[in-house]
Amino acid sequence: MSDSRRSSARRPAAKTVPASPWGRGRRGRRDHGVKREAVIRAAARAFNARGYHNSSLDDLAAELNVTKPTIYYYVANKEQLLFECFRAGLTPIQEAIQAAEASSLPGLARLNEVIRRYARAVASDYGWCMVRADDQDLGPETGRHIRALKSGIDQGVRRLIRAGIEDGSIEPCDPKIMAFALAGSLNWIAHWYRENQPMTADELAEAFVGALGGGLTRRIR
Amino acid sequence: MSDSRRSSARRPAAKTVPASPWGRGRRGRRDHGVKREAVIRAAARAFNARGYHNSSLDDLAAELNVTKPTIYYYVANKEQLLFECFRAGLTPIQEAIQAAEASSLPGLARLNEVIRRYARAVASDYGWCMVRADDQDLGPETGRHIRALKSGIDQGVRRLIRAGIEDGSIEPCDPKIMAFALAGSLNWIAHWYRENQPMTADELAEAFVGALGGGLTRRIR
Repeated sequence: MSDSRRSSARRPAAKTVPASPWGRGRRGRRDHGVKREAVIRAAARAFNARGYHNSSLDDLAAELNVTKPTIYYYVANKEQLLFECFRAGLTPIQEAIQAAEASSLPGLARLNEVIRRYARAVASDYGWCMVRADDQDLGPETGRHIRALKSGIDQGVRRLIRAGIEDGSIEPCDPKIMAFALAGSLNWIAHWYRENQPMTADELAEAFVGALGGGLTRRIR
Repeated sequence: MSDSRRSSARRPAAKTVPASPWGRGRRGRRDHGVKREAVIRAAARAFNARGYHNSSLDDLAAELNVTKPTIYYYVANKEQLLFECFRAGLTPIQEAIQAAEASSLPGLARLNEVIRRYARAVASDYGWCMVRADDQDLGPETGRHIRALKSGIDQGVRRLIRAGIEDGSIEPCDPKIMAFALAGSLNWIAHWYRENQPMTADELAEAFVGALGGGLTRRIR
């Protein structure tokens, strides 16, 4: 029982990998970006299902129905794949913060939109890499890059909280502690959310906007 | 630089391990429980500093200034040490929930006390084991025991949220999502809090009661 669940042939990740863009009749028609993204997404699912150290580029090539040199055409090595998974998860959050900072809505509405996109990102294929993969598995330079991205997100959330307190939409609080509390709630989604949950990622994101955004709302005295 | 930081002689954990109860002049005077607790706490600090797989009972014995057979007098093996660290962290939260359920205060006040003690537990020496250690490193039986403890805490928090909604102290919400959101915020403390932070564990716990309990408070319409 335990052994059969450990055999890679029965892994849910292998079942749920989307149709390979190298599939029959499609060879050569899709562009480089789509294929590269398919490699990164398949790697994210494999790392999530089996852990980084237990996932090989051979398994990944087999799941995508390509040869290993094909994978090396898109990424230099397994570490770069992990880095790209981190980046694929973190980029939408970074973009949400940039959009929020360019918006003229009240701070709470802008923060709620960041919470929404953050929840969706953690519930995506990249959630495990963003939150549960060990960034010590990245080399020094890529590790610094990821830590800078994470720190930029933290600072952006703090700025939005401060803006909301100033414009009266967010209940006064310690922005640093509140940013840690929000990030913890959101990051923890990667520990319990699976795609076979009754909630879709979008429903989950709305529920978190309700739970977290509701709590931030300025209270009437 | 990097190498010197990796040498165990310079590890902060080794510096901050409390005085061994086997120290000079104390031999034989302390009871079995105190010594056993010192072994478990020293293990928790070592696992936190170096990870479970990189911590040996030899290092632990050296840090406590005892022989390895002395350690085996208190625990059967390293896995039992990890289990005891999980349990030492989770037990105060379980007790906080039991106390909350026996109390006649409004649901919000009872939940705030659980948040307070939960935050203190995650900020303690046992926080890393509770949150970041892999419970797959436990055998099937001890693994089930820990998962049951965690599930009992989750169910207890949901019951307190429901009680607070019913008595009008907590803003209506989805108790399951809110329990996940609270647990995520609190568990995540183990990812960023270190004892050398400007905040003590008690100050941190009060800040989390303010941030999370404030957000749960029933809003006036």
